[in-house]
Amino acid sequence: MKNKLPKRSENFSSWYTQVVNQADLADYGPVKGTMVIKPYGFQLWENIKESFDKMIKSSGHVNAYFPLFIPKSFLAKEAEHVEGFAKECAIVTHTRLKSDTEKGLVVDPESKLEEEIIVRPTSETIIWSMYKKWIQSYRDLPILINQWANVVRWEMRTRLFLRTSEFLWQEGHTAHETSREAEKETLDILELYRKLSEEFLAVPVYTGIKSESEKFAGADRTYCIEAMMGDKRALQAGTSHNLGQNFAKAFDVKFQTKDNKEELVWATSWGISTRLIGAVILTHGDDNGLRLPPKIAPIQIVFIPIFKNNDQKEAIKSYISPIVKSLKENGIRFHEDWTDSSPGYKFNQWELKGVPIRAEVGPKDIDKNNVVFARRDTRGKMFIPKQNVLTEALKLLNDIQRELFEQAKKFRDDNTHDVSNYEDLKKIIKKGGFVRCCWDGSMKTEEIIKQETKATIRCILQNQNISDLKCVYSGMKAKHKVIIAKAY
Amino acid sequence: MKNKLPKRSENFSSWYTQVVNQADLADYGPVKGTMVIKPYGFQLWENIKESFDKMIKSSGHVNAYFPLFIPKSFLAKEAEHVEGFAKECAIVTHTRLKSDTEKGLVVDPESKLEEEIIVRPTSETIIWSMYKKWIQSYRDLPILINQWANVVRWEMRTRLFLRTSEFLWQEGHTAHETSREAEKETLDILELYRKLSEEFLAVPVYTGIKSESEKFAGADRTYCIEAMMGDKRALQAGTSHNLGQNFAKAFDVKFQTKDNKEELVWATSWGISTRLIGAVILTHGDDNGLRLPPKIAPIQIVFIPIFKNNDQKEAIKSYISPIVKSLKENGIRFHEDWTDSSPGYKFNQWELKGVPIRAEVGPKDIDKNNVVFARRDTRGKMFIPKQNVLTEALKLLNDIQRELFEQAKKFRDDNTHDVSNYEDLKKIIKKGGFVRCCWDGSMKTEEIIKQETKATIRCILQNQNISDLKCVYSGMKAKHKVIIAKAY
Repeated sequence: MKNKLPKRSENFSSWYTQVVNQADLADYGPVKGTMVIKPYGFQLWENIKESFDKMIKSSGHVNAYFPLFIPKSFLAKEAEHVEGFAKECAIVTHTRLKSDTEKGLVVDPESKLEEEIIVRPTSETIIWSMYKKWIQSYRDLPILINQWANVVRWEMRTRLFLRTSEFLWQEGHTAHETSREAEKETLDILELYRKLSEEFLAVPVYTGIKSESEKFAGADRTYCIEAMMGDKRALQAGTSHNLGQNFAKAFDVKFQTKDNKEELVWATSWGISTRLIGAVILTHGDDNGLRLPPKIAPIQIVFIPIFKNNDQKEAIKSYISPIVKSLKENGIRFHEDWTDSSPGYKFNQWELKGVPIRAEVGPKDIDKNNVVFARRDTRGKMFIPKQNVLTEALKLLNDIQRELFEQAKKFRDDNTHDVSNYEDLKKIIKKGGFVRCCWDGSMKTEEIIKQETKATIRCILQNQNISDLKCVYSGMKAKHKVIIAKAY
Repeated sequence: MKNKLPKRSENFSSWYTQVVNQADLADYGPVKGTMVIKPYGFQLWENIKESFDKMIKSSGHVNAYFPLFIPKSFLAKEAEHVEGFAKECAIVTHTRLKSDTEKGLVVDPESKLEEEIIVRPTSETIIWSMYKKWIQSYRDLPILINQWANVVRWEMRTRLFLRTSEFLWQEGHTAHETSREAEKETLDILELYRKLSEEFLAVPVYTGIKSESEKFAGADRTYCIEAMMGDKRALQAGTSHNLGQNFAKAFDVKFQTKDNKEELVWATSWGISTRLIGAVILTHGDDNGLRLPPKIAPIQIVFIPIFKNNDQKEAIKSYISPIVKSLKENGIRFHEDWTDSSPGYKFNQWELKGVPIRAEVGPKDIDKNNVVFARRDTRGKMFIPKQNVLTEALKLLNDIQRELFEQAKKFRDDNTHDVSNYEDLKKIIKKGGFVRCCWDGSMKTEEIIKQETKATIRCILQNQNISDLKCVYSGMKAKHKVIIAKAY
């Protein structure tokens, strides 16, 4: 028997841990900070993955696979990049174990590698070492490659889905003829990330650009989508980097231009990860567990039969058989729970797992030619005439998808405060919420705000009119309008 | 400009290397023995993966993800298992790099791990350490989990797709109440592997069981599918293991049975890998390059326009537009090559890449209301009336799929020889081909044959009548009928 969930409003952090555990999403692996993604959690990831994979393929991208192992020397080739990743990487030094009569299984010192190998924290270096071989002329461009892969960053403080030593992600790595093309790609992908987050995960996001101190190690510019979680903290949900010519320079990747000159290639990279599952839980969950957006829910409708004897059970089976058939034929992910537990227990379990619609049928419903639908999001019940089940199901799944988004957006907007003085900023950050304010653009101001409030500049908003405005901290002329918040 | 391929009949090994390279399937990574799977090769893998993923999901399996990193001590828990993998594994010993003024980027000795970590060569140990937490009662069984993942085995002699330090695969890991159930699962999967290989890859296989010396390290029994490559050598294309209670014992995984006893859990594991791409190349390729089975080909029909001026080009575009539309709507993977190269160059390139059907249209074809189809497998040409293109395409793709299989099967059967004396066995192994013969079941006989001929027992055939037969080597009473061959 599972434990009861802590109240979300009382202990958000422990609530999160318990939901991940009790809804069978994930577990820690034996090596510190590693994650086991259990089947229910993995189906969520598969649905997210499939949605995004379609988007990038229909915009001309292709998948490939690059090795897990990177020579140590590669990491050092781009100065900022190594700075960003050297302190948290897994290093392979040997390739053989042997039996020792006293100590048991030990590393064979004779198998020591000449050059140590880094387990990829991200693949820019290894990919650009290959692009060096593949790119000679403008005819070889653009390259629009993505890979779905695991990466490793040796994190000290870990949290399932949000920050783990190994995680799954996609990483796009594109190569272009011009700076303008690279910038367009960076922004096109940012828009796909926004779309994925808002239209599939029902998680509203601010899009913008990272400050210098928060950008990707090796990028000219990092764009991001930033979401507000249920505790009013920010979560970076995806980043798209314009890498300029930095990696082309590091790996000496030049191409012959149309007018016969030699130029360094322009690059982008971009990624989203299993962290998005964390975003879904932290955005939509409630005291009863998960609430999953229908478009990515592993199960969209769970059917729970209510019967007291075998005759009733058989009657329900034949009653729902044509319904199930039509739902499945129409692509609805449908599950029937015929296990031995009580209906009450099942209701709780499937609520915890966030299935958008629970369908119930008992003897009375058969008499009235009905199916009972219970919405997970509002917990409202409705009686659906048997012949309308398919149309009502499709409509209801749409409604739930839209309303989850609207609810999250209202929460995000209600808790985003336009602020023009530093005292108000401090109050709001302390109370919880996003601050939208002006910034003078200086790293010093950014650093002081971070030191004093623990909040960071989540993103610089684009296309804002700030001509007459002043920095919230320094009172100097504003350079940007930004979102400031405490973040995961 | 690409090089010409070596003749397949003259230098099979160099032909293979060149096909992989020139058809843009894969490349070596910078760390010795690692593989970069290029987009065209990866699409092949995606199609294979998708086909098999559907099969296992429709038979009740689910996907999950387990960590890449395994504590060293786990590997030692199953005696045979560690024996099989200790000598070829990547070992992580440190987690941080630092800058050294003299040596540049070095491993920070202070980041040394207390217990070394193994990069998974296969996941039995880490998965059974988790199953220990997940399984208490018969109600928790069966567990039918699969994962798609990368694994690492430190190979000395590598070959793209066939044997690399890192490769992609699926590994199924199931847990059952009874020995009989585990055996059924092992055989059910073997049948899915046969089906995938024969019906999708068009690669005929012998199914059977491995001898003790060739079985998986930690299994009670290993079943396999064995295919014959174009040089008459064998390739192990997939294995399905009945693990008995070996891993349950090693990780102390017991469950409460229906009649309230405590018993060790029964297990299977099974895998196929990117090696299958090697099997496809080595089975179907010819002097002009790849020949891909339509069901897994990234591109099923490539369209090549033949024109001398812009008017002709535009006329072709509008002529084929409705054809393309109907092909795509019917799920045919269709590609149009409008690049600047000559038609002849394009013919060669797409032949090299093994696209099953080439479609051509020039001004004369428009006049006659035709499309020209050229089959990659037979290189035969045919003129298809415009209105029949869809039906003829569907039919032809089916024909090619079937005929590639039939051709490979005939080759395999013609080169499988029933042999009853050792001299004949040696002759055939020397000349090339599979030997089907009787074996007394002794490891000694197996070892002598291997020493003297370099050939191994590929599999023990099931359900053979051998009551009156004698071992091909020892003349003792036969215990099994087997396939013997040199193998990849």
